[in-house]
Amino acid sequence: MSPALIELARRVSNWGRWGADDERGTINFITPDVVQRAAKCVRRGEVFSLGLDLGSDGPQFGQAGRVNPLHIMTSTSNQMTPDPAGLRYADDVIVMPLQCATQWDSLAHVHYGGQLYNGHPASSVTSSGAVRNGIDKMAAGIISRGILLDIARLRGVEAMGPGEVIGPADLDAAERAQGTRVERGDVLLVRTGYMRVFTVYGDRVFYMKQMPGLGAACVEWLHAREVAAVASDTNMVEVWPPEDPTVLFPLHALCIRDMGLTLGEMFDLEGLALDCGADGIWEFLFTAPPLRVAGGIGSPLNPLAVK
Amino acid sequence: MSPALIELARRVSNWGRWGADDERGTINFITPDVVQRAAKCVRRGEVFSLGLDLGSDGPQFGQAGRVNPLHIMTSTSNQMTPDPAGLRYADDVIVMPLQCATQWDSLAHVHYGGQLYNGHPASSVTSSGAVRNGIDKMAAGIISRGILLDIARLRGVEAMGPGEVIGPADLDAAERAQGTRVERGDVLLVRTGYMRVFTVYGDRVFYMKQMPGLGAACVEWLHAREVAAVASDTNMVEVWPPEDPTVLFPLHALCIRDMGLTLGEMFDLEGLALDCGADGIWEFLFTAPPLRVAGGIGSPLNPLAVK
Amino acid sequence: MSPALIELARRVSNWGRWGADDERGTINFITPDVVQRAAKCVRRGEVFSLGLDLGSDGPQFGQAGRVNPLHIMTSTSNQMTPDPAGLRYADDVIVMPLQCATQWDSLAHVHYGGQLYNGHPASSVTSSGAVRNGIDKMAAGIISRGILLDIARLRGVEAMGPGEVIGPADLDAAERAQGTRVERGDVLLVRTGYMRVFTVYGDRVFYMKQMPGLGAACVEWLHAREVAAVASDTNMVEVWPPEDPTVLFPLHALCIRDMGLTLGEMFDLEGLALDCGADGIWEFLFTAPPLRVAGGIGSPLNPLAVK
Amino acid sequence: MSPALIELARRVSNWGRWGADDERGTINFITPDVVQRAAKCVRRGEVFSLGLDLGSDGPQFGQAGRVNPLHIMTSTSNQMTPDPAGLRYADDVIVMPLQCATQWDSLAHVHYGGQLYNGHPASSVTSSGAVRNGIDKMAAGIISRGILLDIARLRGVEAMGPGEVIGPADLDAAERAQGTRVERGDVLLVRTGYMRVFTVYGDRVFYMKQMPGLGAACVEWLHAREVAAVASDTNMVEVWPPEDPTVLFPLHALCIRDMGLTLGEMFDLEGLALDCGADGIWEFLFTAPPLRVAGGIGSPLNPLAVK
Repeated sequence: MSPALIELARRVSNWGRWGADDERGTINFITPDVVQRAAKCVRRGEVFSLGLDLGSDGPQFGQAGRVNPLHIMTSTSNQMTPDPAGLRYADDVIVMPLQCATQWDSLAHVHYGGQLYNGHPASSVTSSGAVRNGIDKMAAGIISRGILLDIARLRGVEAMGPGEVIGPADLDAAERAQGTRVERGDVLLVRTGYMRVFTVYGDRVFYMKQMPGLGAACVEWLHAREVAAVASDTNMVEVWPPEDPTVLFPLHALCIRDMGLTLGEMFDLEGLALDCGADGIWEFLFTAPPLRVAGGIGSPLNPLAVK
Repeated sequence: MSPALIELARRVSNWGRWGADDERGTINFITPDVVQRAAKCVRRGEVFSLGLDLGSDGPQFGQAGRVNPLHIMTSTSNQMTPDPAGLRYADDVIVMPLQCATQWDSLAHVHYGGQLYNGHPASSVTSSGAVRNGIDKMAAGIISRGILLDIARLRGVEAMGPGEVIGPADLDAAERAQGTRVERGDVLLVRTGYMRVFTVYGDRVFYMKQMPGLGAACVEWLHAREVAAVASDTNMVEVWPPEDPTVLFPLHALCIRDMGLTLGEMFDLEGLALDCGADGIWEFLFTAPPLRVAGGIGSPLNPLAVK
Repeated sequence: MSPALIELARRVSNWGRWGADDERGTINFITPDVVQRAAKCVRRGEVFSLGLDLGSDGPQFGQAGRVNPLHIMTSTSNQMTPDPAGLRYADDVIVMPLQCATQWDSLAHVHYGGQLYNGHPASSVTSSGAVRNGIDKMAAGIISRGILLDIARLRGVEAMGPGEVIGPADLDAAERAQGTRVERGDVLLVRTGYMRVFTVYGDRVFYMKQMPGLGAACVEWLHAREVAAVASDTNMVEVWPPEDPTVLFPLHALCIRDMGLTLGEMFDLEGLALDCGADGIWEFLFTAPPLRVAGGIGSPLNPLAVK
Repeated sequence: MSPALIELARRVSNWGRWGADDERGTINFITPDVVQRAAKCVRRGEVFSLGLDLGSDGPQFGQAGRVNPLHIMTSTSNQMTPDPAGLRYADDVIVMPLQCATQWDSLAHVHYGGQLYNGHPASSVTSSGAVRNGIDKMAAGIISRGILLDIARLRGVEAMGPGEVIGPADLDAAERAQGTRVERGDVLLVRTGYMRVFTVYGDRVFYMKQMPGLGAACVEWLHAREVAAVASDTNMVEVWPPEDPTVLFPLHALCIRDMGLTLGEMFDLEGLALDCGADGIWEFLFTAPPLRVAGGIGSPLNPLAVK
């Protein structure tokens, strides 16, 4: 952590903002009036799923111990009744890293200085899970208004390239170009188009090991706009390789640990972006409730956008 | 299958209704106008989570090979940077039956006569998962209007008892008492209060091995009302022990296989029911997108109701 | 089951031979004198491991729901003491089908006519595991004299081909050529060379979907010789495609269910065979204790041969 | 690490003893003549299994992220042939920490100063497993002569108590009392009787959180005797709480990391000890080959002793 980053961390910190016991961070921005505003974004009643499939064809290739889901059938056709011609059932089990595909980071995911978001001790994350800031603390979220800012579209490219940085000026420019504005409690979805590296071109290593994304300067923008959550179509939301090779993962550090802002990763924004581009409406009802994994560090998701 | 049940199956069958290739069944009732109607149910902006926690304290006790989730921490405090004082992260893996807690059944869950819903062959469910009717086919659902019918409240009891049958007349009576009406495309939530056996009294065996629930006669009611899905606060939605000991699991057989109607199980309706009882409003925006498990037989859920 | 096979099953049956409660079958042939004889086969003190590695590079490719082991690191460098410079530890978890690589079948693995070996009901294998005939019943085995019969060598080939049948005459001829004799209580290892399809040529599909192996006529030979167990370097021990397309898996049926003879699969016999060919000694101390998986259907193994 | 311990570590170090590339440590003491000597210990041909059952009733209670094995049945009675009356099979999957019950530690299990045994870098243990010193490097072991030293018997107690220290003088005294002597290449089994806390009295927390065991002074004894491995009937081999509260896990540190001596934990020595006490013979053929888990940190075991 450079002195500049430490100073930035101090400025954007939300520690104590919602009380000393808070474990939900910026999700607190989703107040009832925000949810009402979100519901009003449903115009045509069309639903978009932003999740990747969970299966052996997922984006993981073994990096950092993460693997694709292992789906085990425990029954394909077992009898439910004494009659062999009667009712039969199938059943299954899944084994998966909670962050293997489309997912939320919990506020227990990263820490430094021995402290998680809101000063909870890092030691509260034990081999039994996260006692503080676990994903289960966001059970009643995350449903709000979603705003898609399409930076690939802004730049006129099919997909941004690895290492390409998105700055606050890009976010402002996308708002202007799209005629929309991110406000308090919104979930911001940032499209880079980079998901296509995996879904269209099938290169999971290229997709996972480097990516375009938000630069460190966006932290202050996200703080000023009071977004509830930010998600992107890459594995990290933030740019990699990093802008400054001596400052690694500034967004993870400052968003999750200092602001209490959860990051959503590997959202598939392609279909939604096409539709928004066609009708010029970039806001929608957004809903992505995490699974209530007790003490979970993250949660797999099938986020929905409803226009 | 008795002759009467076979005749009933024939009457309520939706095979072919949405084409020979359909794998979504009654979810098809959730048309854009239904979604618009659902969004209008958001009045106060209050959100209720209807999911159970996923952890070792869950409702499973080993029956039919189902166990509670096993949550494995793969990192509690690993370094993300070369500096030991720098950023650190936690990560985790989950092992769980897809139907171990609050969940949807897919239309591949049960079959008889060698056929799944819509005539897809039962053999399409293999050790690699469900090629037809898997839970991933419901990716863009399930978001609709929800209606809670509180049968425990109707009967003036804290919780209905095991084996206690809910009939069509009960559903009609609850509608009248609550001043609401289930319509095409709605998700029906039926409260028996029996969840309290597990959540309040902590008896998972009593909760899982017997239960109140819908009787076979409700199948025709559900068909007539064209509900998109039906869920309850028990492990099976339908009553157990069965009304007729020679006819086992009639609701599973006819709803899932003949109607293509998914069942939602172990929904925690207690908080929502209290609120609906207080303000007299029993409808809400309901959203419970299944995880997109490729070929999955079911999906764990954290359903939300928004009033 | 053809009439001829049913008649053969009757002739080789060991039901009741070791009492009505027996769950160990031909492992009972390993009496103390047999173990003494086995120990005397240790001459030079050289040890051969006959197991495949358990990892993602294993022989499975998804057939019948079997996958290669998933090895999950739960710690790579966690502190064991308050001092960061002090002792640290690594820890791990494995997820694997018990029969994914080198393994024993338990006597609960296959059944017909509603009965397992020794007449135990097939229904005693439940979703909780095998109450009867589980692999844990062989806990104090399997250590005995091993005899390698090298049929590939006998035929002068690097590896036998898929569908190539080994008959009793081959076993007799190999004994004569090698100057050895299989006796009561021995563990018989049959080498086809086919393991090389996987370990040398890396073709797991070709290796797993077809193979040379014992023909049905060997059942009587194995019965007459009173072997304790038989293992081979293929996935099934028996030949596939089958000799008679109307009689599938006769060895599995008659050995496991009627004789109570466990089968050992995917043993890597290459190094051992080279050594035996060089010194002309085809007997050795053989030890392959199964893991004591309570109610397990099989067990992964690292069998040792000591010459 | 205290100065005294660092000096002791230096004295007992085996780094470089078997070459700069060695990953097997004291297992190298098991030379062919040692194996020959081991085979000669088979007198009566009686076999003792020293493993605990692998199942949900195991000793784990959640400490340090370790859980008991999860045994998942993937088939109980699936058809193997087109005929429903024909052959059927059962199949299963296991999920388990590799060190959840009776087990060997690999030489990658603990480290300090950034180095594993023999100077291999600690960073070679990654989220993909142990590239150096993994349990698979002991594939052709561990078979040798075993010697049981029964310290509980020496002290005339059913079981030693938690925190009770075994010193070199105890090991010498047990040898004298039993008329046996531990020599180069032997596997030493030390009985405290403490296993009975779990197997007889069923108290897994008391069993796992504290224990009698070897004191730090034994390290030099083990080094002088050149044992190949040491195992005990407790969870750690070494005593806990520790002799000196400022020196934690000295045996793990010095045996595994400096000597390259693997530790065997949770061996059930009760039946074997009874037999040895009865016939006065405390040596036997000992065999406990680890599973060949690629890059594994430990391995579950079913060790056998043959007298």
